[in-house]
Amino acid sequence: MSEAYRHSRPIWLDNDVKVVKVIDQRCLPHEFVVSDLKTVGDVVRAIKEMVVRGAPLIGVTGALGVYLATLNSPDQTIENDYLIKACNRLKSARPTAVNLKWAVDRVLERILAEKDDDKKIVAARTEAAKIAEQEVENCRKIGEYGFRLIDEIRRRKSNQTVNLLTHCNAGYLACIEYGTATAPIYAAFEKGIDIHVWVDETRPLNQGARLTAWELAKHGVKHTIVVDSAAGYLMQRGKVDMVIVGADRTTYTGDVANKIGTYPVALAAKDNCIPFYVALPSSTFDWSLRDGLREIAIEERDPDEIRFIHGLNEDQRTSVLVPAAESPAKNFAFDITPARLITGLITERGICKATEQDIRRLFPEK
Amino acid sequence: MSEAYRHSRPIWLDNDVKVVKVIDQRCLPHEFVVSDLKTVGDVVRAIKEMVVRGAPLIGVTGALGVYLATLNSPDQTIENDYLIKACNRLKSARPTAVNLKWAVDRVLERILAEKDDDKKIVAARTEAAKIAEQEVENCRKIGEYGFRLIDEIRRRKSNQTVNLLTHCNAGYLACIEYGTATAPIYAAFEKGIDIHVWVDETRPLNQGARLTAWELAKHGVKHTIVVDSAAGYLMQRGKVDMVIVGADRTTYTGDVANKIGTYPVALAAKDNCIPFYVALPSSTFDWSLRDGLREIAIEERDPDEIRFIHGLNEDQRTSVLVPAAESPAKNFAFDITPARLITGLITERGICKATEQDIRRLFPEK
Repeated sequence: MSEAYRHSRPIWLDNDVKVVKVIDQRCLPHEFVVSDLKTVGDVVRAIKEMVVRGAPLIGVTGALGVYLATLNSPDQTIENDYLIKACNRLKSARPTAVNLKWAVDRVLERILAEKDDDKKIVAARTEAAKIAEQEVENCRKIGEYGFRLIDEIRRRKSNQTVNLLTHCNAGYLACIEYGTATAPIYAAFEKGIDIHVWVDETRPLNQGARLTAWELAKHGVKHTIVVDSAAGYLMQRGKVDMVIVGADRTTYTGDVANKIGTYPVALAAKDNCIPFYVALPSSTFDWSLRDGLREIAIEERDPDEIRFIHGLNEDQRTSVLVPAAESPAKNFAFDITPARLITGLITERGICKATEQDIRRLFPEK
Repeated sequence: MSEAYRHSRPIWLDNDVKVVKVIDQRCLPHEFVVSDLKTVGDVVRAIKEMVVRGAPLIGVTGALGVYLATLNSPDQTIENDYLIKACNRLKSARPTAVNLKWAVDRVLERILAEKDDDKKIVAARTEAAKIAEQEVENCRKIGEYGFRLIDEIRRRKSNQTVNLLTHCNAGYLACIEYGTATAPIYAAFEKGIDIHVWVDETRPLNQGARLTAWELAKHGVKHTIVVDSAAGYLMQRGKVDMVIVGADRTTYTGDVANKIGTYPVALAAKDNCIPFYVALPSSTFDWSLRDGLREIAIEERDPDEIRFIHGLNEDQRTSVLVPAAESPAKNFAFDITPARLITGLITERGICKATEQDIRRLFPEK
């Protein structure tokens, strides 16, 4: 445990740079477990089983997975075919988050430019590290831009508490540092703004209740957990000033795939004239997609994630079955929030409307 | 257990008519426990702790609570003051469901018209039984009227599966027989329509996953549990033909207080042009209220209902703590669905729009 607490990041390389270390996010907040990932198979499993989760972190984990592939080539030389196969395995671990594909392809491309095997290995590690540092810097900038929105609400409310609402965990645990949705929150907190965060528990895996609440508590940010379906009620009663969520994939027209339940929160925000912002690094854009509803593949996961709930019982992590054993369930992991419901996107290059025109204004090279 | 299974109703009088028996709905579906209610205090606790829940059932339980009060008068005669105090205790057990107040006041009024103590006791029992039978008949009629809506969808879909979605449990467990939201579903099922029901798990107490799924399974109705926040996604994908929910209190203008999360389901239905119906007996109308958002008191319950989740672990009913022990939560039990989001109300007198004019057309005497 002591080892883990030394690291404020959810992923890092061991001292011998041969093992990827990750916080097992399934065990939080009740237990702090660090897992070793030594092979591509380990990485695929960690992503699939949500030992790691969150679009930016999945991207960095995938990138380090390519690096592990270069370390563990079964042949004497690192064949391109072998590498490409390993990358395809990595990319298929989770279908919705676009960062995974983006990061894996970026490292692969970098390696393919090298001839020498040793150079390939170093190139992979360096590129993965670059991606990680870039995501940290992106999140820091998202915090700076998003802070201005919160500060504007503070001014309008004459320094009364600013109430934010977030869904799932788009905190540093989902990223590397700062988080995406939480970056403006942490920035506002550090600048002394009186903020309070409503944390959707985020069924089925309760990332809000388990991870976001834990993160916010560690930082000392006031917060309250509510059931996901209470977000609408809070807004009806004027208890929310602004919503900030993360994203798993965003079309160039501004449609956002994010954790299941984001869409109803956006509907409620719209119905109550509350600003609804999505915070995302540019790695979360999918520049090939125009229509989120038609074109983004939504992952369907094991129904037991709904039927069984994990938590603490007499100091032991365990799970309980909620419905009758034979009751069937279906587990859709994401939904699509159409651009028309989104007030704006907070990116590392600034804030834009969720429209093709305004997104391209910030990213003219795409 | 054998005793319990003899009864298809969630409440009944013991053979000696001195004890009210109820199914303890907190234990379902994993255990079938019958509780004895012998005093007003027992009834208040059973309602508060949700041993019984659901607007019509709470009403009947309250009515039988008044009967128990007449049985257990501490004085030699049943004083009016004593009765009124007992009724006030009963009515305050849960603030949102209007049926409780309605049923308790109705039995009280009936008793106050009697002089003789023995007659008071019989009058109370008879009036409570009358209310129960009337609710059964109301639910049967709601089923008949609501069936026509489902049958119309079946016709339009050329006999393809009709997909319904419901939130919480407005089944026979919440009523006496048939249920409110489930009455049209059972009617359609019995007439051979191919139906499938999406069951919102309904956090925090999971009445959908625990009770509705269990009820539907017992009847053989096809169903699938989803997390509450997936209702929007299902609608985005065209997987829902109609929503039916129950109600805890309805204004004469058609605003509906119902289990937390009903409002976001209604928003999603509106956004996807899916009919959203509320099934309710007339006892659920509050004829004194015009504006649901301003005038309906919303109960706030123990946050531990969110933080701890109950279920089965190694054949034992137990609970797990999901967030960190020190994480705060807030537990709002209901929300308000504004009339503008409701396609229609299904009552025992027929279907009407959620408007004052159309509601008064069905209930001209109010």
